[in-house]
Amino acid sequence: MIGSRMVKRKKVVVIGGGTGTYSTLLALKNLPVSITAVVSMADSGGSNRILRDEFGLLPTSDIRQAMVALASPDANSLLRQLFAYRYNHGTGITGMTFGNLFMAALTDILGSQTKAIRATCKLLKVRGRVIPVTFDNAHLLAKYANGKQVLGEHQIDEPGENQGKYPIVCLEMVPQVKVNSQAVKAILEADYAVIPPGDLYTSIICNFLVEGISQALQKSPAKKIYFVNLMTRFGQTNNYKVSDHVDEILKYLNAEILDYVIVNSNQRLPTAIQARYTSEKAKLTKDDLKSKKSYRKAQILRSDLVSELIYQKTDSDKLLRSLVRHDPVKMAVVFSRIIV
Amino acid sequence: MIGSRMVKRKKVVVIGGGTGTYSTLLALKNLPVSITAVVSMADSGGSNRILRDEFGLLPTSDIRQAMVALASPDANSLLRQLFAYRYNHGTGITGMTFGNLFMAALTDILGSQTKAIRATCKLLKVRGRVIPVTFDNAHLLAKYANGKQVLGEHQIDEPGENQGKYPIVCLEMVPQVKVNSQAVKAILEADYAVIPPGDLYTSIICNFLVEGISQALQKSPAKKIYFVNLMTRFGQTNNYKVSDHVDEILKYLNAEILDYVIVNSNQRLPTAIQARYTSEKAKLTKDDLKSKKSYRKAQILRSDLVSELIYQKTDSDKLLRSLVRHDPVKMAVVFSRIIV
Repeated sequence: MIGSRMVKRKKVVVIGGGTGTYSTLLALKNLPVSITAVVSMADSGGSNRILRDEFGLLPTSDIRQAMVALASPDANSLLRQLFAYRYNHGTGITGMTFGNLFMAALTDILGSQTKAIRATCKLLKVRGRVIPVTFDNAHLLAKYANGKQVLGEHQIDEPGENQGKYPIVCLEMVPQVKVNSQAVKAILEADYAVIPPGDLYTSIICNFLVEGISQALQKSPAKKIYFVNLMTRFGQTNNYKVSDHVDEILKYLNAEILDYVIVNSNQRLPTAIQARYTSEKAKLTKDDLKSKKSYRKAQILRSDLVSELIYQKTDSDKLLRSLVRHDPVKMAVVFSRIIV
Repeated sequence: MIGSRMVKRKKVVVIGGGTGTYSTLLALKNLPVSITAVVSMADSGGSNRILRDEFGLLPTSDIRQAMVALASPDANSLLRQLFAYRYNHGTGITGMTFGNLFMAALTDILGSQTKAIRATCKLLKVRGRVIPVTFDNAHLLAKYANGKQVLGEHQIDEPGENQGKYPIVCLEMVPQVKVNSQAVKAILEADYAVIPPGDLYTSIICNFLVEGISQALQKSPAKKIYFVNLMTRFGQTNNYKVSDHVDEILKYLNAEILDYVIVNSNQRLPTAIQARYTSEKAKLTKDDLKSKKSYRKAQILRSDLVSELIYQKTDSDKLLRSLVRHDPVKMAVVFSRIIV
């Protein structure tokens, strides 16, 4: 047709879980791209423990967060607020999220978690797709430099004072799970594959452990973009510099396939926050590649990525959550430089 | 305008709570009337205990049921199903209703229970209005023929083997609560006021104890219609006949203001159900006014009102619920004879 524009939207797949993925999806949501979020199902803390142990369901926190991020502003705003709500009253309910209870009820009513996810996406008018990396139930197993092994995402996330000092030398998923074929398809068809910020082992690398995911990333023509975490985390990335992050990602991807590594250039934090992080033995990720423009075949892009919003922990939230986050707007600017 | 019909819808107010009110609202919903449900806030069992004791909120089960009954078929059907859903997994969650958890979250988000009710009505596209009889927190106090006193709706509902034999000689609300002025207004403006079936003391009479309700009913020009319960209930209406029901209602209304008393004429129950009721010391309410066409100024209308659906208790539902219910369709037929 004369005069009509036939611009095909670029396909972007994001493979992660947790709050880093949430920010990444917010960043992509307002760009003219078609988004698929492939999310981790290894979460075993908080609400998810109850879902797993008492409902026999897969954990849905990562799914829920991705859906909230991609929810359309046209969707009922109360529903969107409810989905982000966490209870702070009630024995056995405090700390649970409304969204997880919603998904549990819906799974019972509709007969499967897949149907519940689909129905919720429709209700929230999700822009894009949210796909669990697997439908199988499994746990993470971390092996540390001191020979100790720890089972369970939640246990790995919050190791003891002593264990947290040792690096994770090997992460496995037990038992081995079957990949969701939809996730593989999305990766193979993508123009861009984003590895978002997030807990390096328990939100990001855990996805590469699902057989078929790293293979799909190797095969896919997609440009691979990796966002290095802003902060280190005691027990997971203690003292990790930028190169350590990239090395670990590539170790589990099993090929030199990163095209872009996105590094935060803002090394100042508000004093109050700095103190808080010091008490948690966390610090800004050190850019040890400062003199370099590329590393292991990937181009390094540096940009201020720190959000000016300060995130607060709520009393009802029993999990440790990072307070310094990637800024979706600043991430969107980076994406605009890459995605053409 | 020539040719246009200017028919003003009759205003019907229903004052009750629980499943009898649910059936009544279903019956009225498809008639050309404007409905207001004034519902009890005295419920202290099941989900409501947690709402009261742990969330510090008013019980919402009766409100929730009324909203589900009046929900428009145009409202999202998943939401309607969710609102009727009761959890059967999870420590501290089993037996809770989705609707109550929904309202608790929404109250936190919006800042008041009134706003939460209004927002939920909008979401469920409720046809008519649902109004709590009071916004104050109070408990029922029952005084029995043997001198014993019992506090709390739930405790009155399920008295011990021994206590249940004694009739309730006096029911009070402690502390005295302030009436919701919206409820008074609805009663004063109504063309018809319906006292639906339901637990006589803990769902129906409890509303008359809120100062202003029985006075409004006395003042209101509305025709008053009372549906006598199909079955007696051990601990509340043990051996009560039709006249006992009417006498108790009028005792607490404090004036001879009933215009219609609706009595069930179907005295046959499926054998299986009969056995179940016998084990719970309940039986069909005996029509001791059989020879009469009126009683205490009220006209008696007799009709088969028994639903052919058999209601089942679910495992997750810890409360005793009646299995023989009023049939909404049969009730609608009765309403059609009265409301003109």
